[in-house]
Amino acid sequence: MPISETWLLPDGVADVLPEQAQVIETLRRNSLDFLASRGYQLVYTPFIEYIESLSSLSESNQDLDLATFKVIDQLSGRLLGVRADMTPQVARIDAHVHPVDGVARYCYAGTVLHTKPQGFNTTRAPLQLGAELFGSDSIDADVEMVDLMISLIQEAGLADGIHLDLGHVGLFRSLVQKAGLNKATERQLSDLYQRKALPELADFTQDLAFGSDFYALGRFASDLDALEAHLSADVLANVEFKHAFDAVKTTQAEIQARWPNLHIGIDVVELRSYHYHTGLMYAVYAPNRAAPLAQGGRYDGIGQHFGRARPATGFSCDLYALSAGRFEAKSVVVAPKGNQADLLAAIQATRTQGLSVIQLLGQDDLSSVPYATHQLVNRNGEWTVEKI
Amino acid sequence: MPISETWLLPDGVADVLPEQAQVIETLRRNSLDFLASRGYQLVYTPFIEYIESLSSLSESNQDLDLATFKVIDQLSGRLLGVRADMTPQVARIDAHVHPVDGVARYCYAGTVLHTKPQGFNTTRAPLQLGAELFGSDSIDADVEMVDLMISLIQEAGLADGIHLDLGHVGLFRSLVQKAGLNKATERQLSDLYQRKALPELADFTQDLAFGSDFYALGRFASDLDALEAHLSADVLANVEFKHAFDAVKTTQAEIQARWPNLHIGIDVVELRSYHYHTGLMYAVYAPNRAAPLAQGGRYDGIGQHFGRARPATGFSCDLYALSAGRFEAKSVVVAPKGNQADLLAAIQATRTQGLSVIQLLGQDDLSSVPYATHQLVNRNGEWTVEKI
Repeated sequence: MPISETWLLPDGVADVLPEQAQVIETLRRNSLDFLASRGYQLVYTPFIEYIESLSSLSESNQDLDLATFKVIDQLSGRLLGVRADMTPQVARIDAHVHPVDGVARYCYAGTVLHTKPQGFNTTRAPLQLGAELFGSDSIDADVEMVDLMISLIQEAGLADGIHLDLGHVGLFRSLVQKAGLNKATERQLSDLYQRKALPELADFTQDLAFGSDFYALGRFASDLDALEAHLSADVLANVEFKHAFDAVKTTQAEIQARWPNLHIGIDVVELRSYHYHTGLMYAVYAPNRAAPLAQGGRYDGIGQHFGRARPATGFSCDLYALSAGRFEAKSVVVAPKGNQADLLAAIQATRTQGLSVIQLLGQDDLSSVPYATHQLVNRNGEWTVEKI
Repeated sequence: MPISETWLLPDGVADVLPEQAQVIETLRRNSLDFLASRGYQLVYTPFIEYIESLSSLSESNQDLDLATFKVIDQLSGRLLGVRADMTPQVARIDAHVHPVDGVARYCYAGTVLHTKPQGFNTTRAPLQLGAELFGSDSIDADVEMVDLMISLIQEAGLADGIHLDLGHVGLFRSLVQKAGLNKATERQLSDLYQRKALPELADFTQDLAFGSDFYALGRFASDLDALEAHLSADVLANVEFKHAFDAVKTTQAEIQARWPNLHIGIDVVELRSYHYHTGLMYAVYAPNRAAPLAQGGRYDGIGQHFGRARPATGFSCDLYALSAGRFEAKSVVVAPKGNQADLLAAIQATRTQGLSVIQLLGQDDLSSVPYATHQLVNRNGEWTVEKI
């Protein structure tokens, strides 16, 4: 490799230079402080783990397994994974390392690595920030999490024009169970919903048990009242279906009450993370952006893999996406060389005010700090900070 | 793998639970803010890079290469390394990505991974924090860096009883050059110095060119005045030797003037990182700890690998070591369920005071938050925070 190429970085990987690092750092701190004020306790999870621990979700979620870099542990000879998602790690902590009787709330922020970009033009090293709530199956917990997610985006200054999407895997899942569909039919239906292929759906459901209900689910996926009006009484009386239906309705109402101007969309056949989630799912979108700003949902039972299944709900986001590419240049004050007490005191005082102060080295002059914005100069015996 | 073992972590890897994560997080923020006040600009470096970029130092430092986890990039088919040290990455940024004319100062904090623990009972995933100064070969730059390192340790509250070790590879290196020693002899001498084997050293240097000087270097390694008295005039007149000798002497004097109570030890044949460093080396030790709290040195020319060789000096430390295993439990306030305006206002006000407030979910009572320390209760129409 010639020297001229040693500075090239792999695709989807980038340096974060001072002007942007400062913005991300501030956003990271504010976000964690905000989550702490809501009772979410900070944890740091390991960067590498045995692959079996990281794949608690991957039995049903091959995507996560494919996204995980694997290395051999030279100490044990076993396979390690570099974390591609911190949610399973926090579930492990809740299940085993830090088992709280009652409700546990955790937050985290850290880099995760993906073997391939998870979307068009996306990074392979997102700075994942998230919150998880364990031990409550109450709808209150889902409402708290959705409210938390929106509040966090508001704290980041990105609330303008955002759009909340609510879904719930329980409607489709309970209907499949009631109709006794086989896996192949379930997958075909799921695919038709994903493609919003209504004419095909009408065709496909014609001879299916509960076919008109499956069709209504797709046709009125975004309108709960219309959906209710078109479903059979039999389905509406089903306990699991009713529970899921009410969860979406209650969450919509509660969130709308707290955020009167928020645009909330419903899609009860949004099944992207169908195998991963077990209940309510939520995502926030910003105008003109394909990928959600933040997303999450309920994934009860995740801790089972670690010996303790608990209700769980949570969301995560990428701080790089939340920072929206903002940059911020900092003031830098240059002070002359010297160790006179008055100069050192002036430097100390300027630093205490929150400014960066650099003292010149050796024979250097101002030109040695080309990005300096101010200098400390002595005017009539007084040290003052002046613009350059 | 049975469920009961899925929660096991690899050796040298650990979760950081809320009580300690809070301490580390605060230390991380305070340390970065302190470095910013001294003009060190924050950068985030990538977690993975092409192995050739990470190994700028490893031509002469096989240890770093051995410590680096390697994975195949599925996008390019090339070999990637997970960063085991962030210094080469910051050098790459200085050399190419963010080339500043003049002096550049950077700081960073992030997890690095090592294939094996670097010492007895040490982590494989240190939280490395460091500062680097590029573009000045002045002794002022070394003094600034040593002062910065000690100040940072003081900020962390660990200054009591610390000990600064100063060394310089230039004394031995210039003497080797002057004497025209071959590599084998150089290595044997280096080994004798490392083992502090004075009788063997006396024997070995008896018939060596400049043998008495090589012996004096080992015999008086920690006493510059005695060393000067025992060296030949020829050696003392050597420009490179004199430069290195003066650098140690000046740094010692300057640092002692700034830190009158600091214990400073000198060891001019401390050559542990001989191949890595090019000038002054420094390390801070705490009482009863084998590994240094922080260490660094001059490594001019590191940027050559990226097409721009510049003078460079810097230090780094592990924030886990600097936190000294401290723990801190946070106050957690529990508020009752409800959305009355006065209750919501009281919750908001309590959060604004910097306290964590959790509102009860569903039918939960206080026992659902076993780690709660306070509760928000209504006394005669006033919401007040009371100890549980």
